[in-house]
Amino acid sequence: MEEKIYIFGHKNPDTDSICSSLVSEILDKKNGWKDTEARRLGNVNKETQYVLDYLGIEAPALLEKVEEGQGVALVDHNEFNQSVEGIEKAKIWSVTDHHRIANFETSEPLYYTAKPYGCTCTILFEEFKRLGHEIGKKEAILMASAIISDTLLLKSPTTTEYDKKALEELEKIAGINVNEYGLEMLKAGTNLDDFSANELINLDAKNLDKDGTKFVIAQVNTVSIDDVLKRQAELEEAMRKEIEEKGLKLFVLAITDILNSNSKIIALGEKAETVEKAFDVKLENNTAFLPGVVSRKKQILPNIDKNI
Amino acid sequence: MEEKIYIFGHKNPDTDSICSSLVSEILDKKNGWKDTEARRLGNVNKETQYVLDYLGIEAPALLEKVEEGQGVALVDHNEFNQSVEGIEKAKIWSVTDHHRIANFETSEPLYYTAKPYGCTCTILFEEFKRLGHEIGKKEAILMASAIISDTLLLKSPTTTEYDKKALEELEKIAGINVNEYGLEMLKAGTNLDDFSANELINLDAKNLDKDGTKFVIAQVNTVSIDDVLKRQAELEEAMRKEIEEKGLKLFVLAITDILNSNSKIIALGEKAETVEKAFDVKLENNTAFLPGVVSRKKQILPNIDKNI
Repeated sequence: MEEKIYIFGHKNPDTDSICSSLVSEILDKKNGWKDTEARRLGNVNKETQYVLDYLGIEAPALLEKVEEGQGVALVDHNEFNQSVEGIEKAKIWSVTDHHRIANFETSEPLYYTAKPYGCTCTILFEEFKRLGHEIGKKEAILMASAIISDTLLLKSPTTTEYDKKALEELEKIAGINVNEYGLEMLKAGTNLDDFSANELINLDAKNLDKDGTKFVIAQVNTVSIDDVLKRQAELEEAMRKEIEEKGLKLFVLAITDILNSNSKIIALGEKAETVEKAFDVKLENNTAFLPGVVSRKKQILPNIDKNI
Repeated sequence: MEEKIYIFGHKNPDTDSICSSLVSEILDKKNGWKDTEARRLGNVNKETQYVLDYLGIEAPALLEKVEEGQGVALVDHNEFNQSVEGIEKAKIWSVTDHHRIANFETSEPLYYTAKPYGCTCTILFEEFKRLGHEIGKKEAILMASAIISDTLLLKSPTTTEYDKKALEELEKIAGINVNEYGLEMLKAGTNLDDFSANELINLDAKNLDKDGTKFVIAQVNTVSIDDVLKRQAELEEAMRKEIEEKGLKLFVLAITDILNSNSKIIALGEKAETVEKAFDVKLENNTAFLPGVVSRKKQILPNIDKNI
């Protein structure tokens, strides 16, 4: 391989997307199979910044679009509408992911490794093991942070025994107390005060498409749902603007209480009633409380996808 | 898991599809993770029958369709139009495949293992290694047969170093002479005399879809292209019937000389000229000779897919 292969997670990158791309670059260097370089598709959020600051490292460089034929490796996503501009004409070498597969296609065979785990970094952890590579402290902290983030300290229903096992081993290598470090990291991500409403609904928003019906499910983590809901009027205004600009049929914002593991959703758009069917609730003032719901991937998306 | 998970390859099963399903069942039994049972989606071809007879075993049972929620594991394919009736509503546990990914989607995360190798059984061979399971003589012969079939005795351009390495090791375990056994097996598959024209064009036909444009690429292996071309008139009649019944824009039949590694194609349909662009040839009497072309996956499909 002459040319660099860019490796990146999804748009609106979360901690798993950034950490997976950094860890994959380290893994690829150890393997020597291909020359990859981590990139990011958007701003680093505050939770991820906490991790980078803890390690004293820089975020990967921003990648705005790719040219035709550019070699890429996707981590933590596969859907083209969550990926980089130009992805349809790129040469996809590999995908390493823990999400459903949709809105994805290639014209040639590729490496694809998906497992229904809580976190992409747990799959990468198993790759280190499989290939017999030693895990250094830096990558241990990156992988532990991603697992803590995606599983909300192993409390999300997306958590598997593999995530638990990986985090247990990574904790030792990283030399951190996972509960203390993890809570600080998660809290760092819940300081939403200095975001505009528009920034807030885009912090962790996934663009989705079901047979041409476009919808968005965005999520913010908080330690106080009420604090976020105080801004409901301006959040709804920002959501309505996105609906109009992107031709969406539904915009769901999930405000997730990471301490008590519940969510309140705001649902707007002509298919807003989808969420009533999906969760057997009545929307009141465009909102509904979903006890025990914290996972977009496992709890929110599949139910909306079936009912939209 | 209470219920059986059916594991199967594509419609019009070839040797890799049948052998991969049988080998996966053996592997799953060794792992004890899930209760799978091999199935097949169509008639066993003569080449595969040679393998089953050599081993004195039965083919997997026929599976005509699946009910909603049925657990399934796909091998050697992913595209829904090559899979079982009802696949859209099935619960897909896993995919193990060596093809491009297209016309495939799930609403939930799953296990997906794809590698750009010559054969699905080479991926399964690596799974045995990774998991530390001993490979028995039966599964060694099944995997070796699939690799010989898909790579035409390692001569197809789809062949990778991984296929070569696997076949070398499997030859020892299987206690066969790969070249002698392989040539007998491949020849067994080229006896096409007692097939009707309609059976012949469906022996190994792949249904494809590019943004709603439906097309079929079928392939038959032979030791004499002229022998097959003697039946051109009746083959074209059968192809035209399929085009009409299925609303196809293109039907390509590749007649592949497995001894000299060339193909002659017959192309019909309103998009027949696609193959002229795809291979820089002129169709004469609906046919074109493609020297060195033997692989649908690596040589025929990508070029047609780009030009259709």
